[in-house]
Amino acid sequence: MTKQDHIFHYSHPFELEAGRKLPGFQLKYTTLGQLNSDRSNAVWVIHALTGSSDFTDWWKDLFTEDSPFDPRQHFIICANTLGGCYGSTGPLSVNPETGKNYFHHFPQFTNRDVVASFDLLRQHLGLKKINTLIGPSLGGQQALEWAIAQPEVFEHLILIATNAQHSPWGIAFNEAQRMAIQADQTWKEDDARAGLEGMKAARAIGMISYRAHDGFEKTQAEKTSDKLDGFRAASYQQYQGQKLANRFNAFTYWLLSKAMDSHHAGRGRASLQEALKQIKAKTLVVGIKTDCLFPPSEQKFLADNIAHASLKIISSDFGHDGFLVEFSVFKNIVNEFLTREAVSIP
Amino acid sequence: MTKQDHIFHYSHPFELEAGRKLPGFQLKYTTLGQLNSDRSNAVWVIHALTGSSDFTDWWKDLFTEDSPFDPRQHFIICANTLGGCYGSTGPLSVNPETGKNYFHHFPQFTNRDVVASFDLLRQHLGLKKINTLIGPSLGGQQALEWAIAQPEVFEHLILIATNAQHSPWGIAFNEAQRMAIQADQTWKEDDARAGLEGMKAARAIGMISYRAHDGFEKTQAEKTSDKLDGFRAASYQQYQGQKLANRFNAFTYWLLSKAMDSHHAGRGRASLQEALKQIKAKTLVVGIKTDCLFPPSEQKFLADNIAHASLKIISSDFGHDGFLVEFSVFKNIVNEFLTREAVSIP
Repeated sequence: MTKQDHIFHYSHPFELEAGRKLPGFQLKYTTLGQLNSDRSNAVWVIHALTGSSDFTDWWKDLFTEDSPFDPRQHFIICANTLGGCYGSTGPLSVNPETGKNYFHHFPQFTNRDVVASFDLLRQHLGLKKINTLIGPSLGGQQALEWAIAQPEVFEHLILIATNAQHSPWGIAFNEAQRMAIQADQTWKEDDARAGLEGMKAARAIGMISYRAHDGFEKTQAEKTSDKLDGFRAASYQQYQGQKLANRFNAFTYWLLSKAMDSHHAGRGRASLQEALKQIKAKTLVVGIKTDCLFPPSEQKFLADNIAHASLKIISSDFGHDGFLVEFSVFKNIVNEFLTREAVSIP
Repeated sequence: MTKQDHIFHYSHPFELEAGRKLPGFQLKYTTLGQLNSDRSNAVWVIHALTGSSDFTDWWKDLFTEDSPFDPRQHFIICANTLGGCYGSTGPLSVNPETGKNYFHHFPQFTNRDVVASFDLLRQHLGLKKINTLIGPSLGGQQALEWAIAQPEVFEHLILIATNAQHSPWGIAFNEAQRMAIQADQTWKEDDARAGLEGMKAARAIGMISYRAHDGFEKTQAEKTSDKLDGFRAASYQQYQGQKLANRFNAFTYWLLSKAMDSHHAGRGRASLQEALKQIKAKTLVVGIKTDCLFPPSEQKFLADNIAHASLKIISSDFGHDGFLVEFSVFKNIVNEFLTREAVSIP
């Protein structure tokens, strides 16, 4: 099966929840597999904070031939987020109205705006139904919003390490990261590299929220007791910061962290519980016991309030990042769910 | 009882574990109560990362007349750490050898250096015995080092929310904080305000490590669901950063975080376990169930390896900061321990 990259162009004004407009946008999306004749075998993947549309890069084990989403049977699609930096319109793009890069002028957007842009792509592709919508973390928040906004579209929904409303704790983590970006005096500049040193520190903060005490113990413990400085855990943080700085920008990082903060499925609806009741998809909610950023109580809330939902909490030493690490457990859980709740693909 | 502030001057070269020397130093210390005639009623308090010698400011409920350490009976003493910014010699002090402030030239020091400086003060005061040595967090690490280095001196030792060796996880937290300071371009300057914006972000990171998900939920939850920005948890982080910037400096913050990283009671000794065996004091170890920075497993390790130790794990929604919040539980535990393990004060 060949993986293909595409660009979707939307050339009409696109109104955002916070009130501002984009004069249009593009979304880069990646596909794998073939759409069947009745267009019923689509699996839509939504990436997390720093991911790209290339799901085979960051989640490849879920899309191999022995996996729940075998590309010989499914048409798998993932779009880079609006505001992203992997081919979709984002703050480094040129604003056609000014002829300059957006940079600090890119408007604030929410998860609802992101899924509204995805939905335009879905319509463009003529996908009346999506067999499975799956997303982890920020991608899970967006999957949830989409399944509420378009309940008739999705047959299965898989929400991983995510929540119905971002917590004060999660917002505090994000604010600490934005404060690190703000502390970098270059952040004020209209330049693609603005705030990159701050973003390195932000990434290091993020790494903590994605991991757990025992995972660091397993991977970053010292071999000797005589060191006074230069500890492995510290080098690891520097390395992770640098690695992200090589592939990302502080504008997109900032905007997506704001989208995460504003996540609240109950906003403008009767209540959080009522909003979750709108979902018609057969739903699997997966949590990770050691996830300190999106603790299992948040997944339990989702499963308790979505009509056709089951909950699986998995063990991992790697906290939130368990969703990128615990593939074998994860594959089994998803397989079991899809077999049990099969909506057949003819 | 009158609280008094004093300065101890040490005017000889003071060699540091990492190899460099200070040409001398001063320690500011605060006392409350009277030393009795046989100098047996001293209680030595060691402060945490950003504390001062004025323990009645940050831990006052432990030193009132109905408290375990009644100042009518005890002589209570606390010194500001070496490298500190509350009256002891630190990076903002003038180096007598150059006539300039130390700033970036203040040498790296360890917890062992800090307690060596405290021990010089102890000898200066003629305190052959300390009835109780008590410290939380970084102060607990220092109390542990002191009780190992001078096992004959301490009758009781109370270690709160601390550990025998700083964890890779704790180091990762500290490195993220130092990266935030480094991201602030003013940090390069030799100026008392260098890196202050970075330190604000560092403090926000620290706040996360000191707290817990449920505590943030209790204190920073929103009253409405319609907000898209300006969340309480974010303002709280900004506020905490600013508050620390008004009273602290990035040099001391940096150096103390390095002292915490290098904490390893087994360094240069047969093993961690053997080091803990040296302690002769009757020891109480207190942990907080929700402490994500110094998790209870670390206090269990201490209690399991110190000869005369008991362990109490308390509940709190406030994580590591429970040691500054859960006074009533804490008072009872300490009272019960001191009654049970009484070494009488004549």
